[in-house]
Amino acid sequence: MNTNENTDIAALMQGMGKAAKAAASELASASTAAKNTALTESAKALRDSKAAILDANAKDMAAGEKKGLKGSFLDRLMLDDGRIEAMAAGLQAIAELADPVGVRLSDWDRPNGLHIERISTPLGVIGVIYESRPNVTADAGALCLKSGNASILRGGSESFHSSAVIVTCLKQGLKAAGLPEDAIQLVPTADRDAVGELLRLVEYVDVIVPRGGKSLIERITAESRIPMFKHLEGICHTYIDDGADTDMAKNVVLNAKMRRTGICGATETLLVARTVAPTLLPGIVDALVDAGCEVRGDTDAVAIDGRIAAASDDDWDTEYLDAIISVAVVDGVDQAIAHIGEHSSQHTEAIITEDSKAAEEFLNRVDSAIVMVNASTQFADGGEFGMGAEIGISTGKLHARGPVGLEQLTSFKYVVRGTGQCRP
Amino acid sequence: MNTNENTDIAALMQGMGKAAKAAASELASASTAAKNTALTESAKALRDSKAAILDANAKDMAAGEKKGLKGSFLDRLMLDDGRIEAMAAGLQAIAELADPVGVRLSDWDRPNGLHIERISTPLGVIGVIYESRPNVTADAGALCLKSGNASILRGGSESFHSSAVIVTCLKQGLKAAGLPEDAIQLVPTADRDAVGELLRLVEYVDVIVPRGGKSLIERITAESRIPMFKHLEGICHTYIDDGADTDMAKNVVLNAKMRRTGICGATETLLVARTVAPTLLPGIVDALVDAGCEVRGDTDAVAIDGRIAAASDDDWDTEYLDAIISVAVVDGVDQAIAHIGEHSSQHTEAIITEDSKAAEEFLNRVDSAIVMVNASTQFADGGEFGMGAEIGISTGKLHARGPVGLEQLTSFKYVVRGTGQCRP
Repeated sequence: MNTNENTDIAALMQGMGKAAKAAASELASASTAAKNTALTESAKALRDSKAAILDANAKDMAAGEKKGLKGSFLDRLMLDDGRIEAMAAGLQAIAELADPVGVRLSDWDRPNGLHIERISTPLGVIGVIYESRPNVTADAGALCLKSGNASILRGGSESFHSSAVIVTCLKQGLKAAGLPEDAIQLVPTADRDAVGELLRLVEYVDVIVPRGGKSLIERITAESRIPMFKHLEGICHTYIDDGADTDMAKNVVLNAKMRRTGICGATETLLVARTVAPTLLPGIVDALVDAGCEVRGDTDAVAIDGRIAAASDDDWDTEYLDAIISVAVVDGVDQAIAHIGEHSSQHTEAIITEDSKAAEEFLNRVDSAIVMVNASTQFADGGEFGMGAEIGISTGKLHARGPVGLEQLTSFKYVVRGTGQCRP
Repeated sequence: MNTNENTDIAALMQGMGKAAKAAASELASASTAAKNTALTESAKALRDSKAAILDANAKDMAAGEKKGLKGSFLDRLMLDDGRIEAMAAGLQAIAELADPVGVRLSDWDRPNGLHIERISTPLGVIGVIYESRPNVTADAGALCLKSGNASILRGGSESFHSSAVIVTCLKQGLKAAGLPEDAIQLVPTADRDAVGELLRLVEYVDVIVPRGGKSLIERITAESRIPMFKHLEGICHTYIDDGADTDMAKNVVLNAKMRRTGICGATETLLVARTVAPTLLPGIVDALVDAGCEVRGDTDAVAIDGRIAAASDDDWDTEYLDAIISVAVVDGVDQAIAHIGEHSSQHTEAIITEDSKAAEEFLNRVDSAIVMVNASTQFADGGEFGMGAEIGISTGKLHARGPVGLEQLTSFKYVVRGTGQCRP
């Protein structure tokens, strides 16, 4: 790319940032009714534009096939009637969620008569960078809108045509509601330099939400000058304590690993207490192997069950996102917590036990966004948490941690009401 | 500085980071009683070490005088019996505040029987970078400790001897309470490269809190790879609406500007509604000039009162931190909000009015951390807000906004309790 094109992209992104900030300022005081009208009208526009969306998606699919993209990638890229309807229904569901802006989070009186309220406000402008799934365009734009934020969406180049039609539908909704159309913008170029420019728009963009694989997140983390809500990976652990119920342990581990292996909340490592490992492991390995899962383990695990292959050092730090699990035998809850402290990505960890003391020890001391007792790590999801929807999961400790829903897309301000108080 | 010394400083800071992280892990589950014991024993140690502190401070003062430091700087650096006692009392006051860790922030049940709690946790390791005031060493270390965080303190080189003795007292408190002494560490070198290394310890440090002048904050912002709780400056506005009470307007503006001119919550720009400017301004200028304040204004303001000097374009973007105020005449609340949107640092803004409609408009639409009606902007302070103490003020919108007290130094985790639930 030559210098002129680089300059053009920098100017393009600056312009988008400026327009987003202006839209955000209007959006911050938009009524709940207007935001909901925009969402329901966007849903209507998506349904009315089914043919145009399918056409655009066919172009993306053809290009993807020509490029030789993997089947799983093409499956994520593909839209059909059902998926378009699901997108529209998703927008309506977000319209039905409570408005997270303008909520009085707390309030108190001071002895001098000042009344202080903490009131939720939008964050401002959110940049969302994602890969091939076109439905993220609708989801992310809608979540940002409902939380009063303007969004700059940067989808994968492979889904560009599909996303462009979807954003046109969202803009129809904004227009119908009398809201600024720049509240939702799609980066109109597949050029990768646009991402670099977006990550430097510190003046205009308040948060970056990257969604995608580890390499995408690593690249964005290294480049971004803007704070992020992100998780790099989900190396989730399930620990079977010596106080575990046998059947529950087997069922929960099977679900935690195998329900869907490709999600960040899937368990990647199983820790088993030494006292119960010989009796429990064979049954669990039966269930995992039957379900098509490869089992790797430390020497203690291998000694217990011959179907377990020897794990390498790397296994303990690997997010398989596949039908593979690593198993380590530990002395008890202390060693389990130590193993998690060393290898976890601070996403989600679970203990299976009937011993409430061990459970509390684990819940208190494990430093992850989500800690569970007697439940599958696959519940690590904004929908399952009752948040209605999520734009991602954060393993950071600042602002948002765990599922990032509407509430996590807001900030707050202090509103102070006085009667002429001066500070002594 | 040669390469060996640079390598040494990098290794030194890595070691401090690692030690802080290990201490933070212990501190996260420390009892409230242990943390409070550490604080009260630290207070005792400060009182017992008065002579040593005064000796160390005398060394710092002598070096500062030799270096030709300004009187105001030396005043901030100076310790005496009263200031040491105030530091000790400050530690005791922090011991008396509620523990912000382990608080159930919210909890709810899911239809599948899962019980979800959101529980406050420490952030981890906090790096505090500050200028000459040695009492920040005690304050910041104590606030981090009470909120379960380990701290790495980097004071100004001018206060190095004083801070070193203060940290020794804090470590005595930690030891007496059975808590890790590495929970509070002072960077043991005045070398500026240590700051650069601290700002790159992404693996160990969770948040940086810079406290100081604009140039310090700008330098740290440009260099830091770690998120920050900070404010660059406080360009605070007071707007006198046409619905303002005359006496209240005069009293509040005088207090907002002149109570202390050197704090970030001091009003720097006065906006006055056009309809009331001719009747109100002269009285306000009387009061300001009597108090020793220089008044600069736009052409409308100058036309109303001859004592007002013509302001330059820069005045509207200047944090004077001095007995100077800029005055602009505006058409009404809309133009006041627009002026603030353009020139404010999003710290604190106030409207003086008896008109509740204008007040609500201002409170809703001004996008600052703190918005006030009929009160002095000098109330922008964690103590005045009833938070007990603050480590700083944040103008960012992520995590902490406004005064940063104990609560803002915490994160949270989700604790999920089940009875064997698997995700369908």
